[in-house]
Amino acid sequence: MIIVMSHSATKAEIDAVVERIEEIGLKAELSRGEERTVLGVIGGNAYAYKDAFSHLGGIQEIIPITKPFKLASREFRRSDTVVDVGGLKIGNDEVVIMAGPCSVEGEEMLLDTARHVAAQGARVLRGGAFKPRTSPYSFQGLGEAALKMMAAARDETGLKVVTEVVSPGDVELVGKYADILQLGTRNMQNYALLQEAGRAGKPVLLKRGMSSTIEEWLLAAEYILSQGNRDVILCERGIRTFETATRFTLDLNAVPLVRELSHLPVIVDPSQATGKWTLVGPMSLAAIAAGANGLIIEVHPTPNQALSDGAQSLDFAAFDRMMADVRRLLGAMQKQLA
Amino acid sequence: MIIVMSHSATKAEIDAVVERIEEIGLKAELSRGEERTVLGVIGGNAYAYKDAFSHLGGIQEIIPITKPFKLASREFRRSDTVVDVGGLKIGNDEVVIMAGPCSVEGEEMLLDTARHVAAQGARVLRGGAFKPRTSPYSFQGLGEAALKMMAAARDETGLKVVTEVVSPGDVELVGKYADILQLGTRNMQNYALLQEAGRAGKPVLLKRGMSSTIEEWLLAAEYILSQGNRDVILCERGIRTFETATRFTLDLNAVPLVRELSHLPVIVDPSQATGKWTLVGPMSLAAIAAGANGLIIEVHPTPNQALSDGAQSLDFAAFDRMMADVRRLLGAMQKQLA
Amino acid sequence: MIIVMSHSATKAEIDAVVERIEEIGLKAELSRGEERTVLGVIGGNAYAYKDAFSHLGGIQEIIPITKPFKLASREFRRSDTVVDVGGLKIGNDEVVIMAGPCSVEGEEMLLDTARHVAAQGARVLRGGAFKPRTSPYSFQGLGEAALKMMAAARDETGLKVVTEVVSPGDVELVGKYADILQLGTRNMQNYALLQEAGRAGKPVLLKRGMSSTIEEWLLAAEYILSQGNRDVILCERGIRTFETATRFTLDLNAVPLVRELSHLPVIVDPSQATGKWTLVGPMSLAAIAAGANGLIIEVHPTPNQALSDGAQSLDFAAFDRMMADVRRLLGAMQKQLA
Amino acid sequence: MIIVMSHSATKAEIDAVVERIEEIGLKAELSRGEERTVLGVIGGNAYAYKDAFSHLGGIQEIIPITKPFKLASREFRRSDTVVDVGGLKIGNDEVVIMAGPCSVEGEEMLLDTARHVAAQGARVLRGGAFKPRTSPYSFQGLGEAALKMMAAARDETGLKVVTEVVSPGDVELVGKYADILQLGTRNMQNYALLQEAGRAGKPVLLKRGMSSTIEEWLLAAEYILSQGNRDVILCERGIRTFETATRFTLDLNAVPLVRELSHLPVIVDPSQATGKWTLVGPMSLAAIAAGANGLIIEVHPTPNQALSDGAQSLDFAAFDRMMADVRRLLGAMQKQLA
Repeated sequence: MIIVMSHSATKAEIDAVVERIEEIGLKAELSRGEERTVLGVIGGNAYAYKDAFSHLGGIQEIIPITKPFKLASREFRRSDTVVDVGGLKIGNDEVVIMAGPCSVEGEEMLLDTARHVAAQGARVLRGGAFKPRTSPYSFQGLGEAALKMMAAARDETGLKVVTEVVSPGDVELVGKYADILQLGTRNMQNYALLQEAGRAGKPVLLKRGMSSTIEEWLLAAEYILSQGNRDVILCERGIRTFETATRFTLDLNAVPLVRELSHLPVIVDPSQATGKWTLVGPMSLAAIAAGANGLIIEVHPTPNQALSDGAQSLDFAAFDRMMADVRRLLGAMQKQLA
Repeated sequence: MIIVMSHSATKAEIDAVVERIEEIGLKAELSRGEERTVLGVIGGNAYAYKDAFSHLGGIQEIIPITKPFKLASREFRRSDTVVDVGGLKIGNDEVVIMAGPCSVEGEEMLLDTARHVAAQGARVLRGGAFKPRTSPYSFQGLGEAALKMMAAARDETGLKVVTEVVSPGDVELVGKYADILQLGTRNMQNYALLQEAGRAGKPVLLKRGMSSTIEEWLLAAEYILSQGNRDVILCERGIRTFETATRFTLDLNAVPLVRELSHLPVIVDPSQATGKWTLVGPMSLAAIAAGANGLIIEVHPTPNQALSDGAQSLDFAAFDRMMADVRRLLGAMQKQLA
Repeated sequence: MIIVMSHSATKAEIDAVVERIEEIGLKAELSRGEERTVLGVIGGNAYAYKDAFSHLGGIQEIIPITKPFKLASREFRRSDTVVDVGGLKIGNDEVVIMAGPCSVEGEEMLLDTARHVAAQGARVLRGGAFKPRTSPYSFQGLGEAALKMMAAARDETGLKVVTEVVSPGDVELVGKYADILQLGTRNMQNYALLQEAGRAGKPVLLKRGMSSTIEEWLLAAEYILSQGNRDVILCERGIRTFETATRFTLDLNAVPLVRELSHLPVIVDPSQATGKWTLVGPMSLAAIAAGANGLIIEVHPTPNQALSDGAQSLDFAAFDRMMADVRRLLGAMQKQLA
Repeated sequence: MIIVMSHSATKAEIDAVVERIEEIGLKAELSRGEERTVLGVIGGNAYAYKDAFSHLGGIQEIIPITKPFKLASREFRRSDTVVDVGGLKIGNDEVVIMAGPCSVEGEEMLLDTARHVAAQGARVLRGGAFKPRTSPYSFQGLGEAALKMMAAARDETGLKVVTEVVSPGDVELVGKYADILQLGTRNMQNYALLQEAGRAGKPVLLKRGMSSTIEEWLLAAEYILSQGNRDVILCERGIRTFETATRFTLDLNAVPLVRELSHLPVIVDPSQATGKWTLVGPMSLAAIAAGANGLIIEVHPTPNQALSDGAQSLDFAAFDRMMADVRRLLGAMQKQLA
């Protein structure tokens, strides 16, 4: 932590800051510049103490210099984390496709979709059982019944299963059926849920909060990692901005940047991020070109009849075109599908 | 719901939309303009069906025209809701002050603060027992011990108690001690928690999500209201924008606008919204001038030693100055403190 | 400027940074902490050199510590700037009301409005002659004819005149008629215009860019100040956020914060900031309560017939109610109208 | 335009709206639904009249249904616009690379860069002569001297020249040297400049305003198009969001969406959008994968010595790696460099 004193700070004000630093057991290092004095604060977790100075006079700014996340950082672990989902590797040079309906609406539509996406090269089946919906009057998901259908689809197709859990009390239940626990954008800072998921012994897919900075996202991952669970997959799914022509703004800058800052794998959800199925294909390719480790795509046999998010779901034909484009792109990048 | 057809939509495309409308049991009303055809969709909860058209050709835009919240709307209830918290009224012409530390750090500091703010005219004691913190390494609150300290402070001072609950599993526990359950900004779309709070039989203070629109905020209130709990107090606490000079951007536009759209009381949290104690006084006055029904303010006996959010906490002297200003302002507005 | 080296920076990397610092004529001051090395860079305008290090290895972060604005800062000038507009003082303890139509649409409507607002206590007449409109098909203003009408209204009512200038080539023309040159939100970073306005020898009303940080706003003021023109009045007019229920989000936090950071007066435009006339009254009061030095308000004799921004214009009756409320509020604050 | 009446609107209120519609010469079409009445307004440019209703009682919402841009829309022109810059085609299936220094700092560095990027396959030389800088104390560009250097570099390398113009008064001067006039992000709504550029008889590269919606961007294009200049190239360069880890948030969603809404070519500036050279390569590939018609890239022989934006400039080696990746990607997409 660095404390920048104001241009007009008095000697007494500087002394008071130094005294406070020592009082809380840290060490002060003073640099008197031409224009102002700067204090380096050394030792301990200085980040935790920044409020300790906020009411003292003569301070211009307090700047933390240590990244607040540790276990999630590249500094902590140089090599890429590769998450192993029952043999399926996420985070290496191969690209993983997760696909399926927004909500599980019934057995048949789920199986149809699972068979179709598996045949095209997807390796993970997505599908909502517990749906967090903005309105209490929207369809809220089929709950455990949907989980059972997903498990059945896994048995038939060999796809792994990822599905969202929205409440700490449901972690155990969802964990019984799912291979990967998904934490959604509205729950990225639901710390009770993060901790419970961290203790569940399953890989976790952590979606970025729609208004979370990359730093907060990595801190949310830190909650899971600090429970001993090292199998965290990050998912960029669009952030909220002033632009209303798309549902969210897909922040692909985050993909290469997170790969610099962290060792965790990053996948992209172009369905949520655009809200418009015609944009899903181009943004899927863009995500892979930017270096994403995978995609999670909404696919529905008859999107016009979907109970949720039909506008952003691909039908089978559009999914097939996307997969053909993805394969061609991977070829050019000397990569391949997982 | 209105479906605007593209300029170049064919007759077959228009017919297909009409057919789909009738298929799902709604009624279509066609207006052929000079430039384009517009379809009014009548009956049912058209909002729920908007995805049903997204893959049909020739559509330019689908516009919902019914507000998606009902119980929270002024159309549903003309007169202001006045929440009764054990005799304390929130939502009428009086202004309620809630004050106390960000976190409950110990018995003595809490009691000192409670006595002080009560003497100055506050009616509700705030204080965090379960703290949602961005970093897993920050102080997380004292939990039930803190709840007991707050209850003790209530017994001594007569203040009501408001405190945050962060997990559905804790609603019962927190409800045993608190007079008002607070749902925080990071949990505004934690629907499991909203529903549990809606069933708890206690007034709920619902903070706006830091990146939630006013519509989403009222829909979150709708989750609580639809469980049969009509005692919802809204709290504007700043939204996330590109401006980084303050912690958040306090959206005071929301105060008079929510009073137009809804019958629910609205209070303001200038401590969270600014992140800087020197701005808390001016923004408190601004909030009241804009028509807020109350304030919730962070106060700490020694902010430099606070375990959380010291930078935005008022010390006793600053709180006293603020309260004197508030009284003067209320006088000019022919209002008074609750 | 402070350069924070990465945890894993090598000695050679640190040496390279030190060498580069000295190469550009600055002085390095090294602090070796337990976890990482931090370099203080002393002398010169370090801010200008921050790019000089961006491609060197081993750097975690480069932090400028000097505020980039100088003439606009409180550090440069402790006492408030009071702008003198032909005898009318802006920036002292009195509050100045500027009012008038969005666009000058004709002589009669302008005179009517001018007489009315003057009678109610306004001191400055606002009105658009050159209108920056989002669409090329919207009304663009009457140009010089409108300027003449405003000058005539000044002659009759004694109001000062403020009007927008949108192009460097028009500064001289507008300056012939106006008492205050207004630079609009879309031109806050039109540097050619800022500089021309800085040389015009007239007070300048500088609206905040709708997506400008407070720092950028003060830097835009710096462009004017650095041309020798010290008469800059800042105007907060709402920023662009994700919220669409209002036209912009009025950032009242900016009012007390700018008063801390700068000696320049700050006024508020609640008409532009809300886009909705029913919110103008409450937000005017909020702005004054937050410490604004004045207001600029859109008033139209018949808002439903306005050629621009009727939705946010007050009619005469609404303006009168607002002024009565403003007087009461000022009484409580022991202030008065200018 | 559609006017949605409130649930509780009276017959008199509805009649008053109908009367107003007819008064301004438009035609009303009434639909009485179960819950509320909706009025279709037919004829004329209804968009221009929306303020005409804002003070009438009983209105819930006014919804424009016509896109406000015309000449820029796909509805107006089905086939892609291909801009011809002296034989170089922009907007067809080939991808155009523009590259060069942020600022032209001198003859030698410019020529070195021009030769290098031309050899690697770039077709247009970028370089700033007039620089819009946030601070008045930053380097402002070499002006006409820089323009001459660019023209000389064109003569030697055959590259076309694109450079920014910041003031209407400079359009003629810049047009003498440049093949494409660039309008920067801070000037996207500088209408005087847009119109002047529209009359200059040169292709215009229109950067998106950093806080402009896609609709506003297309309306800015409309200003140019409506002057008779059909050669507009759009450039996505990042928007301002709450995320501060990158300089801006590159909105690649905009690329396929603008291609749907408009016939104009779209290129991408990953240098400005990221502010960090290590992200430029991945985001260049992402932009092309998303369907961009070209890239504009900052390249500098020695970025650590750049007078502006060195942090986001590629050195020659990094540019070469990027170009190799681009070629491979284009191969996979069955496209090629222009």
